[in-house]
Amino acid sequence: MNLILLHENDFIGQERVKLLGRRREHILSIQRAAVGDTLRVGKLDGLIGTGKIVSLDDQELEMEVQLEQQPPGPLPLTLLLALPRPKMLKRILQSVSSLGVKQIYLINSYRVDKSFWGSPLLQPEKLNEQLFLGLEQARDTVLPHIHLRPRFKPFIEDELPEIAKDTVAYVAHPGAETACPQGISQAVTLAIGPEGGFIPYEVEKLKSCDFIPISLGERILRVETVVPVLLSRLTPLTEKSTE
Amino acid sequence: MNLILLHENDFIGQERVKLLGRRREHILSIQRAAVGDTLRVGKLDGLIGTGKIVSLDDQELEMEVQLEQQPPGPLPLTLLLALPRPKMLKRILQSVSSLGVKQIYLINSYRVDKSFWGSPLLQPEKLNEQLFLGLEQARDTVLPHIHLRPRFKPFIEDELPEIAKDTVAYVAHPGAETACPQGISQAVTLAIGPEGGFIPYEVEKLKSCDFIPISLGERILRVETVVPVLLSRLTPLTEKSTE
Repeated sequence: MNLILLHENDFIGQERVKLLGRRREHILSIQRAAVGDTLRVGKLDGLIGTGKIVSLDDQELEMEVQLEQQPPGPLPLTLLLALPRPKMLKRILQSVSSLGVKQIYLINSYRVDKSFWGSPLLQPEKLNEQLFLGLEQARDTVLPHIHLRPRFKPFIEDELPEIAKDTVAYVAHPGAETACPQGISQAVTLAIGPEGGFIPYEVEKLKSCDFIPISLGERILRVETVVPVLLSRLTPLTEKSTE
Repeated sequence: MNLILLHENDFIGQERVKLLGRRREHILSIQRAAVGDTLRVGKLDGLIGTGKIVSLDDQELEMEVQLEQQPPGPLPLTLLLALPRPKMLKRILQSVSSLGVKQIYLINSYRVDKSFWGSPLLQPEKLNEQLFLGLEQARDTVLPHIHLRPRFKPFIEDELPEIAKDTVAYVAHPGAETACPQGISQAVTLAIGPEGGFIPYEVEKLKSCDFIPISLGERILRVETVVPVLLSRLTPLTEKSTE
């Protein structure tokens, strides 16, 4: 946790917050902070700054906060990801949240195990927990949006053209003739299939929305690895703050 | 498992192998293969090709194999990684093995928890298990070499100059002024610190060996994420086979 993420209801005054539970625990046992210490904080969907611990007891921790800096800029990339198995999804969400992706569509695909769509992890508050971890890691405050799309065809036909509009769109497809380009300067829409890949019908549907199949060469990578690899390769990554 | 990795002692004839245990299980229950089916196989540190299942019973599976193709080329990068906690190390080893890294130095750093060096995972056969998983994933056969270096200073002073010779060397260092370059065409040596980063003394020691500190911008990423991000960014990735 490189930034303590503050939520609206942590505020007990204009510049004063009260923390309990996980974040209080972390501050005490991992960061080993005490009254008088100053930590990096940020308000969910808002500014970042510092928090000075002003009181502390068995249950609660209070800080005076000063928020004046913009969070890091977003990654100019919309991610379409065939729903991975829950354990892997957790790690991927933390990772893409830390990398600054703000729009994530979890989509269906022939090779997505149907049971994944019934996972308790897909409840909004559970998904947000993973996204918060990514934000706290990367010192960001802007919560990514996750969209669950359990039906492939209507998503592609009815929604995708609008989502991908004004972006350059790629689908990761082992065996594709085009090598993955590097450092695209415009906004990107990127589709990544399940383990085993999209089936040909799905690739065709994406191509009909102007998605370009791209490959990373002969190696087949796990979804968990390919996500950071492709985000790193396609985008500038090192954007400056929005301000 | 996108390739069945064959070991020297699997061979019961010039072109015939007998498999038991995990790989036999995987072929039957995940790949659902039967007698007559042809699978992609490769010999450890050797060629890749196909294996046709010729017999199968409760215990064993036999294949006739034809090995004639070179495995994918190696990634032109040597990785120095501050020893991560065991659970994360497993995943990182699978990931870097799948990406084609062939030389991995697990090094000490002030912020590496001393207990990590006592982990049973550091036994060579345990480390190899993780590397095999990465090779099987990426359809590679060439086993990476892992070097354990529990003492930082002698490693840097006595060994590193030779290791980094004729390469361009980088140390990932949040806050560094130089942004991480893209698509380096020469061989790279890359040092990645522990969670929390290398301490200034360690960065200085690396700089004395001509390592250039590079940063990915304002975001602080977990080691698990930063490894594929940096490998993807620095190297061409899509090398062709060695032949």
